[in-house]
Amino acid sequence: MTYQGETTLSLALIHHPVVNKRAEIIGSAVTNLDIHDIARTARTYGVAQYFIATPYADQRQLVQELLAHWETGHGAVYNPARREALSIVRLVDGLEAAMTALKEQYGKRPLLVATSAIFREKTLNYKELGEMIRNGEPILLIFGTAHGLAPEVISLADAILPPIMGGTEYNHLSVRSAASIVLDRLLGS
Amino acid sequence: MTYQGETTLSLALIHHPVVNKRAEIIGSAVTNLDIHDIARTARTYGVAQYFIATPYADQRQLVQELLAHWETGHGAVYNPARREALSIVRLVDGLEAAMTALKEQYGKRPLLVATSAIFREKTLNYKELGEMIRNGEPILLIFGTAHGLAPEVISLADAILPPIMGGTEYNHLSVRSAASIVLDRLLGS
Repeated sequence: MTYQGETTLSLALIHHPVVNKRAEIIGSAVTNLDIHDIARTARTYGVAQYFIATPYADQRQLVQELLAHWETGHGAVYNPARREALSIVRLVDGLEAAMTALKEQYGKRPLLVATSAIFREKTLNYKELGEMIRNGEPILLIFGTAHGLAPEVISLADAILPPIMGGTEYNHLSVRSAASIVLDRLLGS
Repeated sequence: MTYQGETTLSLALIHHPVVNKRAEIIGSAVTNLDIHDIARTARTYGVAQYFIATPYADQRQLVQELLAHWETGHGAVYNPARREALSIVRLVDGLEAAMTALKEQYGKRPLLVATSAIFREKTLNYKELGEMIRNGEPILLIFGTAHGLAPEVISLADAILPPIMGGTEYNHLSVRSAASIVLDRLLGS
């Protein structure tokens, strides 16, 4: 049950392990607007699945209730477009569960691609990754909340996208803005 | 007092007159995250000024208090990067006040460019507008909250950017995502 324009790109928003501004490993709380904004952009660009990854059961329960409001509750009637965007959201307890689900879906392990606000090794550029998606390669692109993905998550990635720079030295985009820009660079016309 | 990488592009987020989903003219409430997310992206891409335009005095008062928290209150110490992003925010009562401020600053009327989720006449493409910015032309780019700018605002614009499409028929980006993508298309490398 794919939708018109659906690609083989999936996203995961990681809430643990991520780093705080002192580079300490933390878990972050799920933010309502991270779900909505990124789901809307993801659905616009044909993302197959948008995983919300958190190990905290109470957080997953909260997100589940929010999703139910839009899937079968008042929200589904009030705003069907929002329902459509949120229909690609999947709740998982971590990155491994997302990888396992995609491996089952596509019959092969997806390429794991990390995003980062700083330059790192194993860089894959936007054009190369965009072509892989258009060629039907299963890809999981991961974003970190708080101050970004923990080094232990980055080290699992097969490739890393270059950071987004905008012509100034300022480098503090929200994860919602970064995800929007990355998707447009990969799949915008 | 310009900053390193500052361009002659300014943004305005219009809260009245905008349309609701039934295309009726309404005024919308200012959303905290519209201020933060768009200011962060705008500062990343060298936007000179980010105008929050609302005719409602109580809304401007609320935003003023929020900005003060980050400019001189606890927020300024807790997160100096956020302070830097919010330093480009200006509160105005409407589009005309933003145009007047820019005319005084640059000594000429800025080009008024509207954004829209649907195709319209007077289209200027992203590459053309990006070149005008790099040539130092003063530009005011306007975004509508709710379901977008009212026709009477669109009709004032000198030019209109094409809508953002992502390869599917889904066309419901948040204004935060749309602003991020537009800035990257105009000024991203």
